Amino acid sequence: MAIKKAGVLGATGSVGQRFILLLANHPDFEIHALGASARSAGKEYQQAVTWKQTDLLPEFAKTIKVQECKAEGAFAECDVVFSGLDADYAGEIEQEFVDAGLVVISNAKNYRRSPDVPLIVPIVNIDHLSVIEKKVAAAKAAGTKKQGYIICISNCSTAGLVAPLKPLVDKFGPIDALTATTLQAISGAGFSPGVSGIDVLDNIVPYIGGEEDKMEWETKKILGNINKEGTEFAPLSDDEIKVSAQCNRVSVSDGHTECISFRFANRPAPSVEDVKQALRDYVCDATKLGCHSGPKQTIHVLEEQDRPQPRLDRNRDNGYGVSVGRVREDPVLDFKMVVLSHNTIIGAAGAGILIAEVLKAKELI
Amino acid sequence: MAIKKAGVLGATGSVGQRFILLLANHPDFEIHALGASARSAGKEYQQAVTWKQTDLLPEFAKTIKVQECKAEGAFAECDVVFSGLDADYAGEIEQEFVDAGLVVISNAKNYRRSPDVPLIVPIVNIDHLSVIEKKVAAAKAAGTKKQGYIICISNCSTAGLVAPLKPLVDKFGPIDALTATTLQAISGAGFSPGVSGIDVLDNIVPYIGGEEDKMEWETKKILGNINKEGTEFAPLSDDEIKVSAQCNRVSVSDGHTECISFRFANRPAPSVEDVKQALRDYVCDATKLGCHSGPKQTIHVLEEQDRPQPRLDRNRDNGYGVSVGRVREDPVLDFKMVVLSHNTIIGAAGAGILIAEVLKAKELI
Amino acid sequence: MAIKKAGVLGATGSVGQRFILLLANHPDFEIHALGASARSAGKEYQQAVTWKQTDLLPEFAKTIKVQECKAEGAFAECDVVFSGLDADYAGEIEQEFVDAGLVVISNAKNYRRSPDVPLIVPIVNIDHLSVIEKKVAAAKAAGTKKQGYIICISNCSTAGLVAPLKPLVDKFGPIDALTATTLQAISGAGFSPGVSGIDVLDNIVPYIGGEEDKMEWETKKILGNINKEGTEFAPLSDDEIKVSAQCNRVSVSDGHTECISFRFANRPAPSVEDVKQALRDYVCDATKLGCHSGPKQTIHVLEEQDRPQPRLDRNRDNGYGVSVGRVREDPVLDFKMVVLSHNTIIGAAGAGILIAEVLKAKELI
Amino acid sequence: MAIKKAGVLGATGSVGQRFILLLANHPDFEIHALGASARSAGKEYQQAVTWKQTDLLPEFAKTIKVQECKAEGAFAECDVVFSGLDADYAGEIEQEFVDAGLVVISNAKNYRRSPDVPLIVPIVNIDHLSVIEKKVAAAKAAGTKKQGYIICISNCSTAGLVAPLKPLVDKFGPIDALTATTLQAISGAGFSPGVSGIDVLDNIVPYIGGEEDKMEWETKKILGNINKEGTEFAPLSDDEIKVSAQCNRVSVSDGHTECISFRFANRPAPSVEDVKQALRDYVCDATKLGCHSGPKQTIHVLEEQDRPQPRLDRNRDNGYGVSVGRVREDPVLDFKMVVLSHNTIIGAAGAGILIAEVLKAKELI
Repeated sequence: MAIKKAGVLGATGSVGQRFILLLANHPDFEIHALGASARSAGKEYQQAVTWKQTDLLPEFAKTIKVQECKAEGAFAECDVVFSGLDADYAGEIEQEFVDAGLVVISNAKNYRRSPDVPLIVPIVNIDHLSVIEKKVAAAKAAGTKKQGYIICISNCSTAGLVAPLKPLVDKFGPIDALTATTLQAISGAGFSPGVSGIDVLDNIVPYIGGEEDKMEWETKKILGNINKEGTEFAPLSDDEIKVSAQCNRVSVSDGHTECISFRFANRPAPSVEDVKQALRDYVCDATKLGCHSGPKQTIHVLEEQDRPQPRLDRNRDNGYGVSVGRVREDPVLDFKMVVLSHNTIIGAAGAGILIAEVLKAKELI
Repeated sequence: MAIKKAGVLGATGSVGQRFILLLANHPDFEIHALGASARSAGKEYQQAVTWKQTDLLPEFAKTIKVQECKAEGAFAECDVVFSGLDADYAGEIEQEFVDAGLVVISNAKNYRRSPDVPLIVPIVNIDHLSVIEKKVAAAKAAGTKKQGYIICISNCSTAGLVAPLKPLVDKFGPIDALTATTLQAISGAGFSPGVSGIDVLDNIVPYIGGEEDKMEWETKKILGNINKEGTEFAPLSDDEIKVSAQCNRVSVSDGHTECISFRFANRPAPSVEDVKQALRDYVCDATKLGCHSGPKQTIHVLEEQDRPQPRLDRNRDNGYGVSVGRVREDPVLDFKMVVLSHNTIIGAAGAGILIAEVLKAKELI
Repeated sequence: MAIKKAGVLGATGSVGQRFILLLANHPDFEIHALGASARSAGKEYQQAVTWKQTDLLPEFAKTIKVQECKAEGAFAECDVVFSGLDADYAGEIEQEFVDAGLVVISNAKNYRRSPDVPLIVPIVNIDHLSVIEKKVAAAKAAGTKKQGYIICISNCSTAGLVAPLKPLVDKFGPIDALTATTLQAISGAGFSPGVSGIDVLDNIVPYIGGEEDKMEWETKKILGNINKEGTEFAPLSDDEIKVSAQCNRVSVSDGHTECISFRFANRPAPSVEDVKQALRDYVCDATKLGCHSGPKQTIHVLEEQDRPQPRLDRNRDNGYGVSVGRVREDPVLDFKMVVLSHNTIIGAAGAGILIAEVLKAKELI
Repeated sequence: MAIKKAGVLGATGSVGQRFILLLANHPDFEIHALGASARSAGKEYQQAVTWKQTDLLPEFAKTIKVQECKAEGAFAECDVVFSGLDADYAGEIEQEFVDAGLVVISNAKNYRRSPDVPLIVPIVNIDHLSVIEKKVAAAKAAGTKKQGYIICISNCSTAGLVAPLKPLVDKFGPIDALTATTLQAISGAGFSPGVSGIDVLDNIVPYIGGEEDKMEWETKKILGNINKEGTEFAPLSDDEIKVSAQCNRVSVSDGHTECISFRFANRPAPSVEDVKQALRDYVCDATKLGCHSGPKQTIHVLEEQDRPQPRLDRNRDNGYGVSVGRVREDPVLDFKMVVLSHNTIIGAAGAGILIAEVLKAKELI
């Protein structure tokens, strides 16, 4: 299959930098357009960016000319556009790209709650792309040459939460109560300035603006349904599932740890061993489709009593695998366990890349 | 009132060092005996100890001759003995001291679950000392000259959990479901070697041996009752309250942060403002008794959305005050909030000192 | 003596907040004016500030009305004005205050190199205030009612460097070569945003803008001389002393650690024990004058092989005492040793307060 | 060429674990024997080890039977034996292996100062292996079938120091004065218990036992000569080079940062650009020999003013490349600069592997 042309919006930011790293040497994509603010436009990428990744800036990217975030020029030729834009700018720019017939995969929050926009964790709810397939088919039938659309990447802490729940719901039926207390890494907050050093040195910040609401709401959409017409999403109602999140920022660079507990609607509940086996057996659709970044093992169930730990376990399957440990009965709900996910991979830029791989496998791009 | 003679068991360890700091310049107590292992016995304290506190080793303590942990010599003359012994040694030694008619306040876990031993968080359940008062009165009536007894300090993470719950139970009736996810400081683990640096650098350890069980069990005793005879404790049953703890070690020096949620047995539940007002209004018994270390404000209710934070808030009322923030409704139980307590003060050595102050105020020593 | 009226410029910033804490309950000063940007002017201080100190915002300060940084109103009545202004604003504003006859003690770098402005580390070179005494006397003789002047606080890393050198130069003659590698705390960089968390988590930043040049130059002025007329400063020349600094930002909240080595001009050099004794014997002029914040022990010489350490030793004498350890011979120069100083106390706001105490003791305010 | 059989002594320790990771999938070596204490002997490796690496324990290693550290059984069949033994045991065991005709590459300090033992940083002084070549040739001539010998890996902080000095000495002649202040990672101290968390949280420890002496002495051997007979090493004398080290432990997981300054014996000294060019041009012998792990770029010269940084730069060339930044003139000696090296790769286990690759390339194993 042909290599697809990829664009990156917000290319100089922290999410944009990770898109570029993940696209370097990727078998499916090549970078065709880099967009940033008017201040950076016209410069070579190496001049425009303050590169702060542990991997070096790839050679090929150094001399790419940065352009403005407009659906023209090289961007107009892209098969897929990854957006790492701040929410302040994402709304308008991404809409312009979709209107121009482009496919946008966005890390911004702006369109996550739009009824016809899929909110995707690519190891969880690839089936939600059916709404897009329907839209594209309809457009084709109507003679539209190039149907633009947007797919949203979920919030990073949501991704880690729903990943191990999906196989459990598939196997044991609905979960009707769910609590999650997070210990979140600082990389998600970017670095201009991102989290202040004095806030995470010998300290915890027990608050992340908007995060708890995102986790509670997005979980209901991702674990939720599609309407009868197949055109819009029908998130779970508060009656179907109660979700409570408490979010903390901790002194960790990468990797969100979440202490979660949950209750199944059906009685009797499965056993601890049943739960662990369902997690071990789960193979996500992206992997079944043979996608390049699909994790070999979607959920790693750890038996050591003090794991998962972010420094040791965040890079399983290049950050696309999620680790679960300490699965045990919970005196209040049914089960409690610890989940670790890589926030910049499965929770942000990496998820975008895997979504694009799925789109390609499904010939949606 | 006369200054009371105090002994410290395990004086060279991290808890013992803090007992010594807290007793220095204390208006009620003077250090009369320091006990450590046979290896240290006979040495001056400054030779025996590797002092690792931010306050300097007090001058007066430097030249005190360390003795073995036996209920003889200077220890036999003590009005109260604080024990910072490891659990491996505490069982036998503390019993020997009690048998010799001494009063022991222990930070070890060994006797916490003994039916006739009070498990005390001094800003919470001073009323549980009635069991001791009864025992002492009976002994006096029986002609016993010197009735020994032991009082246990609670586990550090338990202290922070029950502190804000007590005023709520007093005011609004029983809590029947309770979850707590902790982010615990490393100081509680001592320093020989304590928590390994590589475990808390860019990392979380989602497990502390025995801690969750301690939190779940101790909470039931501290919030529980006394039998009809007034001689033993009757912890709450699993039917009365379900408690679920998830414990994590994080990169913080002092101060345990706990994300908790809870449900009242009575309907309708109070409002958020009711809850906050009850917390603000609470004055603990130790403060009412005029104890030197009793916090001026027992529970600090913070209104800033990102507080409490350990580095900023752990030293309220010299570590005897507990901070609560983010009180809000919980979609799963009734309320959720963030609690911060100083683990080495109200959660360990400091609690022991305040208990002793209460004993003195009540003329139990 | 009467309580002096103090003003604080840049009162909402991190240095300004520390000035306020240090002035609370101070026996010599009371806060009379707080100045900040036009955006804050007119508000109560508690509304204008984002308070991020471990001590609570003092009650009395909460309701003070913030004014603009102009030499009028309450500021015009101040006996001394402490400036925590950013360098971008300090130049113009401080000059305006001096022109209005006010006494300004500034933490900004703007006037440090002015020939007639004393650059003071108050435990080191109080004698440099003679230039001010002369100026004030001359003004009085000329009939000037209110002679304004400015005194600069040194850079934080400079303060720690010169503190132990001064007694050595006094006793053993000039030092002609000096190297310092610093491990600097993040608090000095403020918190809006200050040092980014990702820069100091599992990391070192081996560069602090302008810092090395400041250390090298300021050392020469502070250890330098006054001209014959007594009106201007004559820093040491490059021929008299070679100074080389290498500055690093590390994951420490407060307290700058400096590994220094130095060579005396005179031969034979003193012994290690001579050096340690000279450091122990040193009593700074501020302490001799009986100033409230003068350290009881100016230089603490530690004998433990692994000290000083910032977490354990930074608060000696409330941060006004400097700790020195590992004094030993150096194969390249004469001696090497480790110096620890509290960067926000003796290296910033605290130094300003002690300078003001000296001015009061000398009746210069 | 045939795959060589490798043994690992101290296989369960932190250095041993890294040897195993580096040998997994290595084109030149296969693990043939794992040795540990009597307590572990007889167990499968996965049972004997507490694995604490960020990479998973390789499958093939899990079921290897651990044996005692004796020169018999599988060890007797090894072409090369890597030793990660503690100094307490290394002396006797390694000697026994050499006596049995085995080739030992040791990370322990015991034999580093032996006159006939090469102390090797494999990107620096591969030429020192000539002493071994001579010894082996002589043995062969004498009819010895299997000549055992030992090669020592340098101390981790020494490796980073000498790496950029070697090309400079090669090009510009001897360095006669050298100072280094280190900011060392905690991984070098192992993890049982290694560095205590409380020592590196909001703290610096300005002392590492024995480290400064090792750096000062080892530098003189590594940059030194071989005697005329070609049989023993002749370290530089104190007259030839003065070396002064100051060592600090900081809150970094991997990667030693060193602030160094140095003076050339020859006048005039080269320019800053000359120095940088010599560093850029340097290609180490291991790379010239085509060794698998030889760095593509031996010394990376960074031009960004705030680099190198351990988190960002420690993994250049898989940890075999050393990064240098901030090369500039030094007011006291000639030049100063910042050096970053990966302490567990080029400073420990990794160096051992590269040394073995060189031995194989030179047909010494």
